[in-house]
Amino acid sequence: MVTVNRNYLKLPGSYLFSTVARKVAEYQSANPGAEMIRLGIGDVTQPLAPAIIDSLHKAVDEMAGKETFRGYAPDLGYEFLRSTIAKNDYQDRGCGIGADEIFVSDGAKSDSGNIQEIFGLDNKVAVCDPVYPVYVDTNVMAGRTGAYNPEHDNFDGVIYMPCKEENGFLPELPKETPDLIYLCFPNNPSGAAITRDRLQEWVDYANKTGAVIIYDAAYEAYITEENVPHSIYECQGAENCAIELRSFSKNAGFTGVRLGFTVVPKALERDGVKLHTLWARRHGTKFNGAPYIVQRAGEAVYSAEGKAQLKEQISYYMRNAKVIYEGLKNAGYSVSGGVNAPYIWLKTTDGMSSWEFFDYLLDKAHVVGTPGSGFGAQGEGFFRLTAFGTYENTVEAIERMKKL
Amino acid sequence: MVTVNRNYLKLPGSYLFSTVARKVAEYQSANPGAEMIRLGIGDVTQPLAPAIIDSLHKAVDEMAGKETFRGYAPDLGYEFLRSTIAKNDYQDRGCGIGADEIFVSDGAKSDSGNIQEIFGLDNKVAVCDPVYPVYVDTNVMAGRTGAYNPEHDNFDGVIYMPCKEENGFLPELPKETPDLIYLCFPNNPSGAAITRDRLQEWVDYANKTGAVIIYDAAYEAYITEENVPHSIYECQGAENCAIELRSFSKNAGFTGVRLGFTVVPKALERDGVKLHTLWARRHGTKFNGAPYIVQRAGEAVYSAEGKAQLKEQISYYMRNAKVIYEGLKNAGYSVSGGVNAPYIWLKTTDGMSSWEFFDYLLDKAHVVGTPGSGFGAQGEGFFRLTAFGTYENTVEAIERMKKL
Repeated sequence: MVTVNRNYLKLPGSYLFSTVARKVAEYQSANPGAEMIRLGIGDVTQPLAPAIIDSLHKAVDEMAGKETFRGYAPDLGYEFLRSTIAKNDYQDRGCGIGADEIFVSDGAKSDSGNIQEIFGLDNKVAVCDPVYPVYVDTNVMAGRTGAYNPEHDNFDGVIYMPCKEENGFLPELPKETPDLIYLCFPNNPSGAAITRDRLQEWVDYANKTGAVIIYDAAYEAYITEENVPHSIYECQGAENCAIELRSFSKNAGFTGVRLGFTVVPKALERDGVKLHTLWARRHGTKFNGAPYIVQRAGEAVYSAEGKAQLKEQISYYMRNAKVIYEGLKNAGYSVSGGVNAPYIWLKTTDGMSSWEFFDYLLDKAHVVGTPGSGFGAQGEGFFRLTAFGTYENTVEAIERMKKL
Repeated sequence: MVTVNRNYLKLPGSYLFSTVARKVAEYQSANPGAEMIRLGIGDVTQPLAPAIIDSLHKAVDEMAGKETFRGYAPDLGYEFLRSTIAKNDYQDRGCGIGADEIFVSDGAKSDSGNIQEIFGLDNKVAVCDPVYPVYVDTNVMAGRTGAYNPEHDNFDGVIYMPCKEENGFLPELPKETPDLIYLCFPNNPSGAAITRDRLQEWVDYANKTGAVIIYDAAYEAYITEENVPHSIYECQGAENCAIELRSFSKNAGFTGVRLGFTVVPKALERDGVKLHTLWARRHGTKFNGAPYIVQRAGEAVYSAEGKAQLKEQISYYMRNAKVIYEGLKNAGYSVSGGVNAPYIWLKTTDGMSSWEFFDYLLDKAHVVGTPGSGFGAQGEGFFRLTAFGTYENTVEAIERMKKL
């Protein structure tokens, strides 16, 4: 008789964004006249850049020709993309990452969920609180945690690193020593950025304790300040302790195109084993490559035209971030983020809980955001707005919020 | 200090097709003049059908427009694709599968590797021998098996069901009762098909014992005989015991496009839990949808033009299968498969081992096939050729083999 993976049953309710979507749909159906503005889920709204569209059409045409058709891709990604990434994202920044340390995937969500599979079930996991839910949920599903505690909204056996206003929403080195440390900077959901010096402390800590850092740099394209690192490999010794996750979703608008990559340095060894070998095996056995046409689109992100067009696209979103940040600040809200990230993190007003504020904003302003408590206990009383709407909608949303 | 997932270390050597690719590359580099014909890996060679190319271009254009751009896809796939699949592949065949029981993915390899995650680690797994390596390897990686035995080329704790010549390469019901049963028909690697009556015996067996069948129907489009089922849901009661995996790779040439789906009926319950709920959670947490443009291409597979064009493409490959099957049979080889599947399974000559025959064929005929032993101990002494080459190359390969 089959048994199921009962770790799944520890997970409370549904995925955060499914709940948000359901609540919005219910409200919309009860109030068909309400003009909703969605600044909730971190989904982009601008169309793909012309250079990317051109590369997609060209690759599709190749798939139509006998001589140019492409079947199975190389397990770990096409060389043309891996070497372009290694050069542009790493070598040009002085990071010694080679093309054969880049693993192309269908996106950072998959990678951030799958990466834990190459580690033992006995590892102690540390996450920021608030945090992107996938890191925790996938460790729960794998059996690396204990039970869920509803009263504290946390899981036994996980080290939560509170990211509070008084610390600039940055985590402190934990008291209990973790084995796997998930860090995401610029941060989702808080929009907080970490300086190179502060990140170096984490790298040194991991190298000292034998921990591994899983560094999610999905939002690096939004960095505007000089002392904020785009990659953890800008820190000395990171190739001995860190895996980096990257996404094309936010820097190139690929949320519906699906492309990402993971960097596992060959120097990274734990428990007598190269993690590069394990991830290559996982990737080669449970995945069959990103689509050829999508990998060509990824290459176009790094072309001269692609870079110029995407710089403009990011500026567009960051103008929205400024509208939100400054508009709410001037209206008396307590806000952070938005300078090196497309997320603005605000305190709810009048002591409302995050979900109360969600309902309030939905009802009074028809603006959809994401409740901070959905990202963890320390997110309670906070709220996330994203810069990924259109400019016009973003301005309108803030005007509505000012009037509340 | 981090520990790694030491189950990975039980896996011997590299993935079968990586070894084949390496051996071919080495031979080619030592013999640059040799004109190689590759009938090894099951990769298609015909370009995408015109209806699919049109849908891809159209979808790319949508991604270029403000009003038509698509970001994140619905977790489990676009409704337009799920309902098209449910109607064409199931309801039109009299199977009561609904659109909400279809989970769209990036391909059957990912699904066949990931599906075991929703089951407990204490389940006993049964596989055919020979078998597609992903089923076994992913269960090894998860920790559902014991150690590898080099002398028997098998893993402790796995139930191997020998598929031998005397049984038409079909498995018998195992003596020891398994919990999870992997079946693939039409079969990779042997090309054997199962009749509806024989498959019904497996469904009845699973319903009697409480086992779950993971049914890989990736090759159903190649079925030519009436009494061979295209789906396990053609059998009575299968919705209570079976999960079905489907691929667009072989029926529509999507090996480099990446699209597949898994059917988990809502009626399928084990251990007090609906498997549909678990897979939805897995899919929603560790995956972020197949690309919009690829899902539109999948939809085009079911259009009137798409169906007509793909029927022609499959006929092209099945003509190759006939060339191989009849050519080798007339030359005195012992061959099977090739009637309801794009694979031909032949006995090596002169008592050669599978890898000896691989080297022999590579050296004497410059033809690349796949050693049967790479699929399991019972594959020793057998060899797989695929019908996915061009017609000209296939004819030439068989001419060369006849002359040996």
